[in-house]
Amino acid sequence: MSERVVRHFQEELEQLQARLLAMGGLAEDRVRAAIAGLVTRDLSIVEGVLAGDAPINQLHIEIDNRCFTLLALHQPMAVDLRAIVSAVKINTDLERVGDLAINISEAAARYLKHPPVKELIDIPRMARIAQSMLRDALDAFVRRDVAAAHYVLNQDDELDGLKTQVFRELLTYMLQDPHTIEPALDLILVSRHLERIGDHATNVAEDVIFMVSAKDVRHHASE
Amino acid sequence: MSERVVRHFQEELEQLQARLLAMGGLAEDRVRAAIAGLVTRDLSIVEGVLAGDAPINQLHIEIDNRCFTLLALHQPMAVDLRAIVSAVKINTDLERVGDLAINISEAAARYLKHPPVKELIDIPRMARIAQSMLRDALDAFVRRDVAAAHYVLNQDDELDGLKTQVFRELLTYMLQDPHTIEPALDLILVSRHLERIGDHATNVAEDVIFMVSAKDVRHHASE
Repeated sequence: MSERVVRHFQEELEQLQARLLAMGGLAEDRVRAAIAGLVTRDLSIVEGVLAGDAPINQLHIEIDNRCFTLLALHQPMAVDLRAIVSAVKINTDLERVGDLAINISEAAARYLKHPPVKELIDIPRMARIAQSMLRDALDAFVRRDVAAAHYVLNQDDELDGLKTQVFRELLTYMLQDPHTIEPALDLILVSRHLERIGDHATNVAEDVIFMVSAKDVRHHASE
Repeated sequence: MSERVVRHFQEELEQLQARLLAMGGLAEDRVRAAIAGLVTRDLSIVEGVLAGDAPINQLHIEIDNRCFTLLALHQPMAVDLRAIVSAVKINTDLERVGDLAINISEAAARYLKHPPVKELIDIPRMARIAQSMLRDALDAFVRRDVAAAHYVLNQDDELDGLKTQVFRELLTYMLQDPHTIEPALDLILVSRHLERIGDHATNVAEDVIFMVSAKDVRHHASE
């Protein structure tokens, strides 16, 4: 490639990364709003999340198109090729996070029809961890930072532990008082949706490690 | 590309598709076994699924490597480029289906510690639909058949309806008899895992439509 073409490619790649960060920010905002609506029992916030998925869906299509254009026009090799294929995957993960914000809001809208089962402490904590995992994973992608990606992988255990704790606690409520069964079920679903957001952040972190080192950490292939 | 290089590329692409079909077959087998173990209350089948994810994980890595090699060596354009990027995505979806077979088996292992809540009819029905969606979606990919892909998208509503039906029925059991709460929760989780397998089949079908027509049907972008 000529120097000018290389420069153009690098600019396009930087724009792609900026758009992925914007998409990550949108996805994170939507998760935060869904949980805020649940915790503050504000149905209007929840309904705002349910109605507002157009921007993230448009960005999903735009980013996919950018990736295909970069692959087709520049035919990148090695780490650049891996970066663009990773971007396709990360784009899919972020779109799923947006879908999970919808799923959380659907459960929240049902939950708000009942009296509160309990004060919500672990669920907002899970949300904060999942959001910071997502942010850290995207930062690691842009900075091509393998150590930061490994740090994201380590946070997943904490999220998993909280999910189990939430489940056990809600089960106790359900067994004691059948009136809590329906709303407690929705809280269990919310905690599982948050766990899945952590899984998507983990996917992004694994893509970063693969992109930088061409080493596949999924399935502990190297062990 | 010279004629010989083109022929080599087409052979590699056919091998890639054959490996994706093999992976789809493995994923489907594992889902079938997990559900069979649950329905027949045979813990040894369930444990077999839990212990047996090495082949699908190896195939996942192999297929990803094939895709990168094809992209790097042949620098394909247009429909061939879209086919290979679709293969990367489909590979991810199939790996997740394998993970969901594990999740189903984990729920089944817990479920089998309790007396049966009810005769399982809708859950095996959901499993059959999810499996056939997956198979049809992969066939549509290999045959580049847009009509078959649309047929897969239509089946998803049936799966969704069954999931809602399973949920309502199990909720009734839980409200009537607290002893059923724990096992019924696991059946609800199984039905949600099956619904997600249908979602993955839907993703594959959408990739097929995009690959063939370069038209993005996700988010109903054309409407």
